[in-house]
Amino acid sequence: MAYTDFMEKHIVLAPALLILFGTTGDLAAKKLFPALRSLHDGGDLPEKAAILGIGRRPWDDASYRARIAEAIAETSDEATAPDPAFLERFYYHRMDMRDTNAYDELRSRADALARARDLGDNRIYFLATAPDLFPVIAEHTGRTGQVGNGGFRRLMVEKPFGRDLASAQAFNEGLYRRFTENEIYRIDHYLGKEMLQNILVLRFANRLFEPVWNTEHIDHIQISVRESGGVDQRGGYYDHAGALRDMVQNHLLQLLALLAMEKPACFETECVRDEKVKVLRGLRLFHPDEKDPGIILGQYAAAGEQPGYREEKGVEPDSATETFAALRLEVDNPRWRGVPFYLKSGKALDRSAADIAVVFKPVPYGGNEPFEQPNVLLLRVQPQEGVNLQFNIKQPGTVSTVTQVDMDFCQTCRFPGQSPDAYVRLLRDAWVGDLNLFTRWDEIEAAWTLVDCIQAQRENVGIEPYARGSAGPDAASRLLTQDGRSWIEPEEKIPGTCEPCHT
Amino acid sequence: MAYTDFMEKHIVLAPALLILFGTTGDLAAKKLFPALRSLHDGGDLPEKAAILGIGRRPWDDASYRARIAEAIAETSDEATAPDPAFLERFYYHRMDMRDTNAYDELRSRADALARARDLGDNRIYFLATAPDLFPVIAEHTGRTGQVGNGGFRRLMVEKPFGRDLASAQAFNEGLYRRFTENEIYRIDHYLGKEMLQNILVLRFANRLFEPVWNTEHIDHIQISVRESGGVDQRGGYYDHAGALRDMVQNHLLQLLALLAMEKPACFETECVRDEKVKVLRGLRLFHPDEKDPGIILGQYAAAGEQPGYREEKGVEPDSATETFAALRLEVDNPRWRGVPFYLKSGKALDRSAADIAVVFKPVPYGGNEPFEQPNVLLLRVQPQEGVNLQFNIKQPGTVSTVTQVDMDFCQTCRFPGQSPDAYVRLLRDAWVGDLNLFTRWDEIEAAWTLVDCIQAQRENVGIEPYARGSAGPDAASRLLTQDGRSWIEPEEKIPGTCEPCHT
Repeated sequence: MAYTDFMEKHIVLAPALLILFGTTGDLAAKKLFPALRSLHDGGDLPEKAAILGIGRRPWDDASYRARIAEAIAETSDEATAPDPAFLERFYYHRMDMRDTNAYDELRSRADALARARDLGDNRIYFLATAPDLFPVIAEHTGRTGQVGNGGFRRLMVEKPFGRDLASAQAFNEGLYRRFTENEIYRIDHYLGKEMLQNILVLRFANRLFEPVWNTEHIDHIQISVRESGGVDQRGGYYDHAGALRDMVQNHLLQLLALLAMEKPACFETECVRDEKVKVLRGLRLFHPDEKDPGIILGQYAAAGEQPGYREEKGVEPDSATETFAALRLEVDNPRWRGVPFYLKSGKALDRSAADIAVVFKPVPYGGNEPFEQPNVLLLRVQPQEGVNLQFNIKQPGTVSTVTQVDMDFCQTCRFPGQSPDAYVRLLRDAWVGDLNLFTRWDEIEAAWTLVDCIQAQRENVGIEPYARGSAGPDAASRLLTQDGRSWIEPEEKIPGTCEPCHT
Repeated sequence: MAYTDFMEKHIVLAPALLILFGTTGDLAAKKLFPALRSLHDGGDLPEKAAILGIGRRPWDDASYRARIAEAIAETSDEATAPDPAFLERFYYHRMDMRDTNAYDELRSRADALARARDLGDNRIYFLATAPDLFPVIAEHTGRTGQVGNGGFRRLMVEKPFGRDLASAQAFNEGLYRRFTENEIYRIDHYLGKEMLQNILVLRFANRLFEPVWNTEHIDHIQISVRESGGVDQRGGYYDHAGALRDMVQNHLLQLLALLAMEKPACFETECVRDEKVKVLRGLRLFHPDEKDPGIILGQYAAAGEQPGYREEKGVEPDSATETFAALRLEVDNPRWRGVPFYLKSGKALDRSAADIAVVFKPVPYGGNEPFEQPNVLLLRVQPQEGVNLQFNIKQPGTVSTVTQVDMDFCQTCRFPGQSPDAYVRLLRDAWVGDLNLFTRWDEIEAAWTLVDCIQAQRENVGIEPYARGSAGPDAASRLLTQDGRSWIEPEEKIPGTCEPCHT
């Protein structure tokens, strides 16, 4: 399953040592080991590449490699065991990441390993630990790390990047003491998803879309990221975060930025980031008055034997943390003035799905009772990828009745198995030094500014319970129905059965 | 197979007598009898409706009805015999249609029949004879026909409407002596096809299309009507017509008019006709110079045991009649200036199909080797009906490779059996007095003006042979390739297998 067969092979990854903090955690097991294997199997990892895993557990290289093989067997749908040469790339270094003195020893181990495997001076640091460790790791890898002999060093930072504007600023200032902006790879793994990368192509490589991509023709845009699972084992972390911090500040606002940005001067990293940050800085609550701030917060309640949020492990029994948020935002510029962006995201909902609906203004057609169904361009982000267009035709056999139909491009069906996991792409990009799919500090700053403004209204807004497995709080439906609109539910497609009508 | 189940039932057909000239011919057998049966079975024909067939053969009512039953059995895919009440609507009147005195007798027979069946004074005359009979029938039915007692009379005229501007004008002047413009239903049966009626809905009831439907965004438009059959038994007629008169002057130019017209002030008959005629009057040959007039004429040659055109029955052995025409036209107005309309139509080609391709301007996307595949909106008119959109996405698994994909709406699959034959619609419309799908004199006049201008260049242009069953003359391909374009070949869809991917 070498996803990367489809990647441009002329870009070769440089020799490097990847130092993986938090290597005993979930992200490493579920995402990073399989992604590295995919890169290895695709021939993308250079021979001179190794991974040094950092953790507190009393493992050695052998038990670490056994654990990696086990993790891959658990997560992969492939039956075959990993290539032994893949496992031999991994080494384990036990250390207490809070012990600031331990970083000199880590430096020595890394250098020795690099010499032994002829890896040169390139270092990639991947922070996949609990967030409170990020600053100390960044500080001391920065202090002890080096960039001599023409080598590079790159710091990959997982979310969350702070918990509000002030903490994010403080964290970022710490990073800037040791790293330059271009050495910092702030991960928003949604940007690694195929359909997010597709947004700019859809918008700017198709004559049909860009000319109508504005307030003259678009009625509103919906961005929906739903999870059917609850917080599971992550209650301790989640109860201090909530949906606004965990999903909206990063993934949903990045989606919005890609949908709303102006055409960049070029499609290189800084051009795109420049346009995204303009959108994020222009974000406003659509009706920022106390009566209808356009903010809905919810928290899931028990359903049957399934626990409610407050019964989850690690969650305070009187927690006021939101597990659901719906927002009505506006981008304050000429292209978008008057176009609401409705966002919704939550846990323990009826479905796991991420979708975008671009709803165009209707064109009244006909006589006494004009037909006014709008065109809708649906982008399915996950679990299936695709594009669907709802449009209007004359109902066959009638004199002049108009009816709505759709046409569909099911990317999952047309390119089965060819969408790499986001982490394959993100690890590859950091390795080649491509910052395109990582977020710049000013984007984070602008997003936190908005989220802090929303947080400031929590008291006014309150929090509405919703049954586990439901569509979310009723208020989230009312947010649209009171504006004469409704949430659009994309149909699922069955992969592999979509293209039989071509002769 | 009551197609008309889907028609608006609140419009009721009035009692009337349909007088069918040419009732022993092919059109009656293949199209009109089945269409009338469909209207009868759908409950659309009022009880007080009868058909008086006119021909020279020595038939009576009984043998006529037997012939109708036989014709329906030959053409219908339905096994069941027609309703006896349907056959009892038909009566036969034998007459020599060239005998001008015979029309008084016909009038008496019609009136007697109307009294006997209580049909009132409404008369519909359908001219389905050889074209040279049209003027005499029109003149003498007009002379002997009546409109007393509040009844209506309507004259349905089959193509061809003249063979050039002068003959069409003469014919029309004759009609005007006896009928008003609103009593004349000039048939262009293409206008009865579902997808032609769909063009205005697609254009004007969808926000995505109308804003980009102009020279700023559209590169060119292709209109292609291909027939795989040769002239068969119609060589005698066809050799005096040719593709320009038989197909281009009517069907293809009507298609073009619907695609190119401005948004009408209303969607009623005269509003739409006003806009269509503006397009037809604005038509120009795209490069009207002698070197490249943008006119390709062809004539099919034998292939294997299949005869060439000049070997067909009724065709002169040295005939210079074109069985294929391809044109490059322009609509001379601000919306379309600089946009070529490529038309092609012919017999004995590789496929029977009518399609429209709206090819948008490409949007260069990417860096050193920009991707420039255009959006293409395909309208499939026949044999299958549908809409297909070619658009661009990021190829999954690549960093930034753009690739073209398509999405499809297969109307034939989604609404199986619900597109009535054009004649069902046209008979119904004439019966209720709806002129919308019939052509006004000034449209015909403008179309002949263009065709005469093309005919005037025959000497310069010459005629290129092409093999029976081929794609047509090579010059028709060159017409586009010399402009950096090419004919688009829509894929066929298999009805009934198109929608399995909805869960």
